[in-house]
Amino acid sequence: MKVHQDRIKVETKGLNDFIIITDRIEKIVGESKINKGMAFVNSLHTTTAIIIQENDPTIFKDMLDLFEKILPSNKKYEHMEEGSVNAVAHQKQNLLGNSVSIPVEEGKLVLGRWQDILFLEFFEPRQREAVVTIIGD
Amino acid sequence: MKVHQDRIKVETKGLNDFIIITDRIEKIVGESKINKGMAFVNSLHTTTAIIIQENDPTIFKDMLDLFEKILPSNKKYEHMEEGSVNAVAHQKQNLLGNSVSIPVEEGKLVLGRWQDILFLEFFEPRQREAVVTIIGD
Amino acid sequence: MKVHQDRIKVETKGLNDFIIITDRIEKIVGESKINKGMAFVNSLHTTTAIIIQENDPTIFKDMLDLFEKILPSNKKYEHMEEGSVNAVAHQKQNLLGNSVSIPVEEGKLVLGRWQDILFLEFFEPRQREAVVTIIGD
Repeated sequence: MKVHQDRIKVETKGLNDFIIITDRIEKIVGESKINKGMAFVNSLHTTTAIIIQENDPTIFKDMLDLFEKILPSNKKYEHMEEGSVNAVAHQKQNLLGNSVSIPVEEGKLVLGRWQDILFLEFFEPRQREAVVTIIGD
Repeated sequence: MKVHQDRIKVETKGLNDFIIITDRIEKIVGESKINKGMAFVNSLHTTTAIIIQENDPTIFKDMLDLFEKILPSNKKYEHMEEGSVNAVAHQKQNLLGNSVSIPVEEGKLVLGRWQDILFLEFFEPRQREAVVTIIGD
Repeated sequence: MKVHQDRIKVETKGLNDFIIITDRIEKIVGESKINKGMAFVNSLHTTTAIIIQENDPTIFKDMLDLFEKILPSNKKYEHMEEGSVNAVAHQKQNLLGNSVSIPVEEGKLVLGRWQDILFLEFFEPRQREAVVTIIGD
């Protein structure tokens, strides 16, 4: 049993940049030499999200339409120091979550045919960071 | 310390089939001989969800009413290759999550009085699969 | 490698009491003597949530406004044995989740500058309980 820990930096291009990080997590799993266990990916930010979903722009567009409906960007919010885009970004993170867990089997991430790990930027161009922890045998 | 890993297959009857899987996860915890640690249940699909909630049809109905309000099934979506039911299924998974973690104590899942582990089908009758990983002592 | 497990009790003052529990989790991490790994915090209830977010009342107010919009408290729901506040509490838990995971590095929680661990009461004044599990080296 061991723990392997690393960090990834994610350069985001701005609002609604959805970045596939599956390969980067897979690489860290390989480096860990852990065969069987769990991988955890945790964002260190409050206006980003990490999800497991299909990498398909039409699914992303449907998500953005849903958010625009329930969290319109042109509304006045309470948390307005950095504007309404920032205010709704916090709420999007609350709804989607800021971390994922993925099983590891035979030294590889266990993901379904359509599953990818996605880092979602909901604020502005930033250098973001996530901690990757692999625990197992 | 050890890791025990298994899979469960879940035959779903179709849209909005909410299936209690608590006993199946408990059985795998028993087989693992792990006394203290964590259990992780991860769906391999993008149109299902796994949640911890009370097993009560009125709670499920309230969830479906909420989803119908914010993600109406008769609307046209972007992700329409498999119809609007499929399009909203992806969004429901994003909001609810596709995995849960449960503490393990004295060789058993630690769940509150009203908590059950539920596998939620949001698309159509399918054979679904989830990975169950127990890590601990 | 080891597992350290503990519980925290959280006395909530009632509906929408948002309680920072970061220090209490940090303390348990310290007691665990685990340097590198993961911390898991799991609520044992179905009408509370645990999230990682900035401790800022304006963000909380925006969350409550969003919930009032999509889950109005004056509506009649199906799950009405304990009233509409209870009915929507279950749905809020479904959307926000009832557990969080946090990496542990050098014997401390790894949290971003703005991140806190928050226990959210969505029903009434209660003594609540969460299990804290630390796994690592």
